[in-house]
Amino acid sequence: MSDNRTELDQLGEFGLIDKLTENTAKFHDSTIIGIGDDAAVIDVGNKYQLVTTDMLVEGIHFDLMYVPLMHLGYKAAIVNFSDIYAMNGDVTQITVSIAVSNRFSVEAVEEIYKGIHKACELYKVDLVGGDTTSSTSGLIISITAIGEVEKDQVVLRSGGKENQLLVVTGDLGGAYVGLQVLEREKEVYSSNPEMQPMLDGKDYILERQLKPEARKDVIHFLKELGVKPTSMIDISDGLASEALHLAKHSDLGVIIYDEKIPVDQETYDTAREFNLEASMCALNGGEDYELLFSIDQADFDKIRDNKHMTIVGHYVDKASGCHIVDRGGNLVSLTAQGWNHFQG
Amino acid sequence: MSDNRTELDQLGEFGLIDKLTENTAKFHDSTIIGIGDDAAVIDVGNKYQLVTTDMLVEGIHFDLMYVPLMHLGYKAAIVNFSDIYAMNGDVTQITVSIAVSNRFSVEAVEEIYKGIHKACELYKVDLVGGDTTSSTSGLIISITAIGEVEKDQVVLRSGGKENQLLVVTGDLGGAYVGLQVLEREKEVYSSNPEMQPMLDGKDYILERQLKPEARKDVIHFLKELGVKPTSMIDISDGLASEALHLAKHSDLGVIIYDEKIPVDQETYDTAREFNLEASMCALNGGEDYELLFSIDQADFDKIRDNKHMTIVGHYVDKASGCHIVDRGGNLVSLTAQGWNHFQG
Repeated sequence: MSDNRTELDQLGEFGLIDKLTENTAKFHDSTIIGIGDDAAVIDVGNKYQLVTTDMLVEGIHFDLMYVPLMHLGYKAAIVNFSDIYAMNGDVTQITVSIAVSNRFSVEAVEEIYKGIHKACELYKVDLVGGDTTSSTSGLIISITAIGEVEKDQVVLRSGGKENQLLVVTGDLGGAYVGLQVLEREKEVYSSNPEMQPMLDGKDYILERQLKPEARKDVIHFLKELGVKPTSMIDISDGLASEALHLAKHSDLGVIIYDEKIPVDQETYDTAREFNLEASMCALNGGEDYELLFSIDQADFDKIRDNKHMTIVGHYVDKASGCHIVDRGGNLVSLTAQGWNHFQG
Repeated sequence: MSDNRTELDQLGEFGLIDKLTENTAKFHDSTIIGIGDDAAVIDVGNKYQLVTTDMLVEGIHFDLMYVPLMHLGYKAAIVNFSDIYAMNGDVTQITVSIAVSNRFSVEAVEEIYKGIHKACELYKVDLVGGDTTSSTSGLIISITAIGEVEKDQVVLRSGGKENQLLVVTGDLGGAYVGLQVLEREKEVYSSNPEMQPMLDGKDYILERQLKPEARKDVIHFLKELGVKPTSMIDISDGLASEALHLAKHSDLGVIIYDEKIPVDQETYDTAREFNLEASMCALNGGEDYELLFSIDQADFDKIRDNKHMTIVGHYVDKASGCHIVDRGGNLVSLTAQGWNHFQG
């Protein structure tokens, strides 16, 4: 090993993955897309198969002080499903690996699995394998999801064209604001365990954080509407980070209009309680698991009145760069301040 | 959650997996085999696809005191490849998820990936995805391997028939004895860091432990010989545990002859240094990543002189149970004392 030591946070998550996987060899013609999209794309004959994997680590991605184990299992499955939908595919199978220390009981692990089974049931996914092992300390859940898509229906991050419209599903920022509420109540509880948590009127944002859904329904709606997105990604790290990914892969710039970003009233009100701007939570918060995709302008009429979809901007040429138009009409450079797990 | 607390070690790894996955629903006809074999089997049209996943946890599966990071990456890939070969398939793609704490540098993570890339290169496997995240403490590597096999060539654990011969590849026990050497040298080092480790003459068993290979070659040989195993499993937890799995899935009993178990001379000699019986290391040690399979008696002549394969026993009817014939000719009940990570 070299004597030079580069700290992980110097590169960040995406930089690290790029570095680790540069010059990756390819031996199989069936490998259509490897690293660099929401899921890998494998040619299995009549269809493409999609493969994605995500690892959730205690103390980094979740805090068992306020995350019920069943919800944790549910969410661990959902975040993987979301990556498959982001390719315009359907999820068919998952494998689940869990590492737990002896401080967990069999019943605790069963709770996690109840959540996984629940997600599989609702989304019609088969649990086909996994590994259960012990851990020296925390709880780790690693899920791999497998999906399928007709070859002419797969949507990559890279298919965008100038002037195409950028659409987000649902509303954003809720999961992040929900996390702020949970963190606040944890603080309160830590200093006075007798205090009752103040979670009234926060149902929606807490559910967004603790038990998110993946947009299988939107993939279905789009098919019914006859709209095939030209590029797509799921919103796990915040709208800003995802828009930058799409722009980079499509070799374009983007413009997003702050005032167009869909934010729920409860998200908005609670963000204010924390002196946060709701749209900043949407841009940089993450964990909403909505979809961000581009459509051809010709498809505008098909989705304009759809309550699940909001046009937030459009692609521009690469030289114009990536910007957000703030509520004062100013063009502000779009930067990713999404969740970088390697930063303090 | 229930008030009843069942400790994880009451069930053990296999009991826990059985409990967690009983009554798993199935929504997709493409799911041919789910949990319960070396890999899941998915029907993708012309072929079957194979999927397996394994998680390696620092402090449980490896000790960074003596495991070089590059070897660790290599081994993490190999253990997954082995599961695909155990289905008589070929590995085509893997995804890799790694959780590392900040005590690791970028260069350290690169070392792990070098090992993974090396394994992919040698075994002709495409690295198609993954996730890199931070961890609060240890290092965790979770790999999912994808493979393929012609539909009429897949070999399950369940295909054995009475009187069919049980064959093991290579030799057994080396990885376990290698681990004893490493643990001994770690003890010596801990009490006196000035001492040089005594690893001379232990090359083979150390390599068996630190940098094992998977038996892709055997799958190839068998095809050339025109032998299709009737049931197969890879030897990750020791011959005893794997033979019991095959017997259970094939609804049969087994007899294994102690004197037939292939053990390398270095394994034998070193086991004696530790006052261990080499065949006990083979039966209960694990991590050899050889294959155990059954063949029809009619195929005996095709493999009898093959240096990579040794007949160690045969299937018997279920009522006769699972036994080993010791060197004194006594019939001893075969029990799995394989690696149970949940036991102290």
